[in-house]
Amino acid sequence: MQSVLLFSGGLDSRVLLQKLLEDQQEVFCLSIDYGQRHRKELELAKSVTKKLRLKHEVVSLSGIHSLISGNALTGTAEVPDGHYQEESMKITVVPNRNMMMLSIAIGWAINLKAQAVSYAAHRGDHSIYPDCRPAFIAKMAELATLCDWHPVALYTPFSHFSKTMIVQEGARLNVDFFETWSCYKGLDVHCGTCGTCVERREAFAEAKITDPTIYLKRAA
Amino acid sequence: MQSVLLFSGGLDSRVLLQKLLEDQQEVFCLSIDYGQRHRKELELAKSVTKKLRLKHEVVSLSGIHSLISGNALTGTAEVPDGHYQEESMKITVVPNRNMMMLSIAIGWAINLKAQAVSYAAHRGDHSIYPDCRPAFIAKMAELATLCDWHPVALYTPFSHFSKTMIVQEGARLNVDFFETWSCYKGLDVHCGTCGTCVERREAFAEAKITDPTIYLKRAA
Repeated sequence: MQSVLLFSGGLDSRVLLQKLLEDQQEVFCLSIDYGQRHRKELELAKSVTKKLRLKHEVVSLSGIHSLISGNALTGTAEVPDGHYQEESMKITVVPNRNMMMLSIAIGWAINLKAQAVSYAAHRGDHSIYPDCRPAFIAKMAELATLCDWHPVALYTPFSHFSKTMIVQEGARLNVDFFETWSCYKGLDVHCGTCGTCVERREAFAEAKITDPTIYLKRAA
Repeated sequence: MQSVLLFSGGLDSRVLLQKLLEDQQEVFCLSIDYGQRHRKELELAKSVTKKLRLKHEVVSLSGIHSLISGNALTGTAEVPDGHYQEESMKITVVPNRNMMMLSIAIGWAINLKAQAVSYAAHRGDHSIYPDCRPAFIAKMAELATLCDWHPVALYTPFSHFSKTMIVQEGARLNVDFFETWSCYKGLDVHCGTCGTCVERREAFAEAKITDPTIYLKRAA
């Protein structure tokens, strides 16, 4: 089985990569440069795929910046501190990011005649990111079978996992979590206070797994 | 009503543009540079939107070339001559092109809080391009309502039109067809023999509308 994986360099997609490898899948990793501040995740994606000797493509969507400005991940708005559930985190929504990334992954899968596209949407994303909701994923899975005469399956085994469950799965698979990136702020180390850092810390604590991440400071 | 239009500079989207303007819609035109040989359509898209004083964005997907190579529109394979229905035209399929383009259009529409994304899929495309089929369009329309908290409608009024009907509609709307581009070969004038040129000529002939297009040569 061949699968194109949306591989950001973040924790979730790193664990999914390891799961696909455990399942003996041939994995083609795709990272999307959509102008995110946190370039560090792309660097980690490159070093991980190089180490594992996997095919890896980085596609630039640099042309879309002017169309999707106003969010905090690509624009000039500041990345908010605090908990993911909070209303303020909605500023980190990049409009339609998942459909853009999946459309490219599906295009590549069609060209490779790969059976599947895998991505690591999980339960914790639902309340903030509309394009991580089960309804979006289910409809996208139906659409992926219609894009070409070669149907592509959408594989999202973590869609009902919490972040904590993903950390536990990663530990089971011996993932080196130090080689994954979550922070949205674009510093050299994880800030420790933005929504995704708070979520990361909580997940390790709840999973009772040692967190190897270096954080700039503790959450308030 | 605001609408983001996928505006290639081709005949179909030019007629749709005129229809949206007739309907008093505020139109935001989006052209996608996916490395197509026929750059002429992008030039025409620019000059038409400039003349009509419409907002126009051209987004480059240059990074995807290596992923979707092998087709005749972006790769090194030769654009075949002959009729659209023929098996050989399948080499002009760019894998998942429509989902890629629509995903960006929907992202822009979400950012603008526009109500709709419009694109000019038509009946004549169905047999060659899987992502122009009614099943694809219907599923994409459902998905477009789920990408964000702001639902976007997909407007495809030509999905059951033949090319001939689009030419007739364009004539009714006084579209200057000379300012539209169909040929896939990337010459300075329409070649007259590739599938899309053959289709264009037949549509004008069948519609009994004068064809202002300059063709390099007559079809065999």
